[in-house]
Amino acid sequence: MRNSALSALGRRTTEPPISWLMHAALSRPRLISLAAGFTDPVSLPVTETRTALNLVLRSPRTGRPALQYGSTAGEPKLRQLTARHLRHLDASSASSSSSSRRSKSRTRMRMKDKDENYCSAHLLITSGSQQLLYMTAEALCDAGDIVLVEDPTYFVFLGILQSRGLRARSIRLQRDGLDLAHLEQVLQSLRRRGELRRAKFLYLVSYFQNPTGITTGFDKKRGILKLLKKYEQAAGHPLYLLEDAAYRELRFAGRDVPSALSVRGASDRVIYAGTFSKPFATGARVGYGILPEPVFSAVKHIKGNHDFGTANLLQHLTAQTLASGSYARHVTQLRRRYAHKAGVMKQAIKMYFPPEIEWWEPEGGLYFWARLPRQIPTGVKSEIFRSALRGDVLYVPGAICYADDPTRRKPDHEMRISFGNASEVDIHEAIKRLGNVLQKFL
Amino acid sequence: MRNSALSALGRRTTEPPISWLMHAALSRPRLISLAAGFTDPVSLPVTETRTALNLVLRSPRTGRPALQYGSTAGEPKLRQLTARHLRHLDASSASSSSSSRRSKSRTRMRMKDKDENYCSAHLLITSGSQQLLYMTAEALCDAGDIVLVEDPTYFVFLGILQSRGLRARSIRLQRDGLDLAHLEQVLQSLRRRGELRRAKFLYLVSYFQNPTGITTGFDKKRGILKLLKKYEQAAGHPLYLLEDAAYRELRFAGRDVPSALSVRGASDRVIYAGTFSKPFATGARVGYGILPEPVFSAVKHIKGNHDFGTANLLQHLTAQTLASGSYARHVTQLRRRYAHKAGVMKQAIKMYFPPEIEWWEPEGGLYFWARLPRQIPTGVKSEIFRSALRGDVLYVPGAICYADDPTRRKPDHEMRISFGNASEVDIHEAIKRLGNVLQKFL
Repeated sequence: MRNSALSALGRRTTEPPISWLMHAALSRPRLISLAAGFTDPVSLPVTETRTALNLVLRSPRTGRPALQYGSTAGEPKLRQLTARHLRHLDASSASSSSSSRRSKSRTRMRMKDKDENYCSAHLLITSGSQQLLYMTAEALCDAGDIVLVEDPTYFVFLGILQSRGLRARSIRLQRDGLDLAHLEQVLQSLRRRGELRRAKFLYLVSYFQNPTGITTGFDKKRGILKLLKKYEQAAGHPLYLLEDAAYRELRFAGRDVPSALSVRGASDRVIYAGTFSKPFATGARVGYGILPEPVFSAVKHIKGNHDFGTANLLQHLTAQTLASGSYARHVTQLRRRYAHKAGVMKQAIKMYFPPEIEWWEPEGGLYFWARLPRQIPTGVKSEIFRSALRGDVLYVPGAICYADDPTRRKPDHEMRISFGNASEVDIHEAIKRLGNVLQKFL
Repeated sequence: MRNSALSALGRRTTEPPISWLMHAALSRPRLISLAAGFTDPVSLPVTETRTALNLVLRSPRTGRPALQYGSTAGEPKLRQLTARHLRHLDASSASSSSSSRRSKSRTRMRMKDKDENYCSAHLLITSGSQQLLYMTAEALCDAGDIVLVEDPTYFVFLGILQSRGLRARSIRLQRDGLDLAHLEQVLQSLRRRGELRRAKFLYLVSYFQNPTGITTGFDKKRGILKLLKKYEQAAGHPLYLLEDAAYRELRFAGRDVPSALSVRGASDRVIYAGTFSKPFATGARVGYGILPEPVFSAVKHIKGNHDFGTANLLQHLTAQTLASGSYARHVTQLRRRYAHKAGVMKQAIKMYFPPEIEWWEPEGGLYFWARLPRQIPTGVKSEIFRSALRGDVLYVPGAICYADDPTRRKPDHEMRISFGNASEVDIHEAIKRLGNVLQKFL
């Protein structure tokens, strides 16, 4: 047989670039990887998880149910706790910023508390938030459809678009989030070319963005939703905002920003993707989404076909840690830990990076973003990347975080460097190695 | 907005019929459900799971890794243990049947042990075997493509086909598996009509089939693979056999049948889907697949986009129970338990069902299959179904297990009744109630 039987999707789906990077890492024992977005291994809540699992499995009320099938949308108690958790996050962030604003925002918050943006009825538990991103693309997009993304954005999401035959239109990023003027330009241009009906949603990594570390301000979220609404008539259908808040709880400086769910009157256009994996145990892979109808029902039924519900044992574990407060305690510790590791990386960058390099310090999450002078490439085939690998240090080349958008140039002079996985000593050493490489090319 | 933004897939994906049945059950507290394919709750391995998790999380070697991200294909140790487990199943089943055959089969078995059919390199760990079924359909089929299925078959799989816009062609079922003559007829007819190039694989629930309880004999598996091979030239690409062995280890009578992987020279056309959920803890949701290239790579990359790997904690749990022997001990107990429950159901059926009803006793799995006289419907809108519901007993109507195949009539006079979830007392009582209803209509 010369021909394969693969579908168009099967043919389009390729190995993600990060896998290649991982393989490269495996063959070099001395290598320090600043590439992977892994969780800090030292802080993984091994004891907390063991305690919670023993409680779940010892209790006659939860022991057997945790090992039985559940429902597709998720364990009812976890859905309730998650909805409450999210409502609490948004309420605290709104009130913490209200002191510097007018009382109007406080009034708005009171209204929000009453409305149903955080209703567990529209909350779906997923296998990490990644599964929600995938299923949202399935529910909303046919091959050839258009998704608006940040420029740059989360490269695994770009892999989903590529696999499903979707087109990306990239929106310029400013230090405080999406460039609203550019978003409007892109929407106008799509309308002019009769392509707006192919646009379905805007994908926004709103907190400590992967890869740049940028956080989108609340006013920008409001602005995005307003613009999307403005162009719905021409699109002929709702234009959704998919807010990926995966890193939200990993803030170690500054104040939390309310989610797009709390933009007044816009919750029927917001799909919120959250996760307990990154702030607690990545190996437990429990994420969640809040989605408006009809997207919620479509995604829930799609999930029924995928796996008819996330493993009940993991859901009971997560509910237990949320209810007991062990989740909250762990997140507090984890933030301190990342603050410290980010500090170590920052000091090392100051010490070893040449002054020509611009770098962005995040207020949370796992990533620094560094920009070299434009003419110096950092991609996998570049001299810098190969020198770094020979020097036993690995980073994520910025280029793989840019969509294939024919209307945009793909920068190739940046790097994502993560302080998540490496130890403090290794962070220092790796930045020193990387600094040495960079000195040679500048 | 009048129009929704949903994709064709989003629009096609509907609530599975089983959900509707579950809802119906919830509102009637006295109802006994023989509908759900749930695991026996009393036998769920709560203590074994707790012990295994404590071992995993107490060990410095596995504690943190279990809570970290893993690789997309799965935890290397679990992949090895699973490959060995499967090789062992096939080797035992082949040798147990060799006494009644010629020594040729023993020689064949020795050869097989050397070959790479059970290589962990082509083994992928998934979130239950359900996820493997979904991703296989993604990797192989475009909308409009054809999948061959048993008539009847697993209705959630039919939901996947429906959702993805695929067409089913149903192959008649005999008491020992697929009707090979009818399979050839269907393949011929597809070739005649120029549609064979749209056919991609045959889906076979090979052990104690859902819903009929039928097991496909080894010779039939060989026959299926031979026929598929014969028509590949006309199809222009490989025609795969997707063997869904979800119930395989739940055998309580008779001898195991080797899987299609052990059909000589055919392993490059077999996709084998197995699971640890049904024989151990359904709430842990760990399944696996062995797939030939290029399907393996395509499915692995698709899994990367879905969730980049099944929860590591569950994989470590499963590896621990396999390695310690607690898995094997549990399966032995579970088989005894299901043998007993099937016996209770059989006695009750003999006692309460009218003699006009034909029923099939399984040698394993979770289901009896009952056939009423042809003119008496059992579907959700039938008098029998409604009477049964009023009488507080629920079954799966046979009709929902038949594909929408324009070339086949959809029988509506059968029922799937499960002894998996209900207690012995409830099984007896439910069959009595169902018998009373049936008596009224016969």
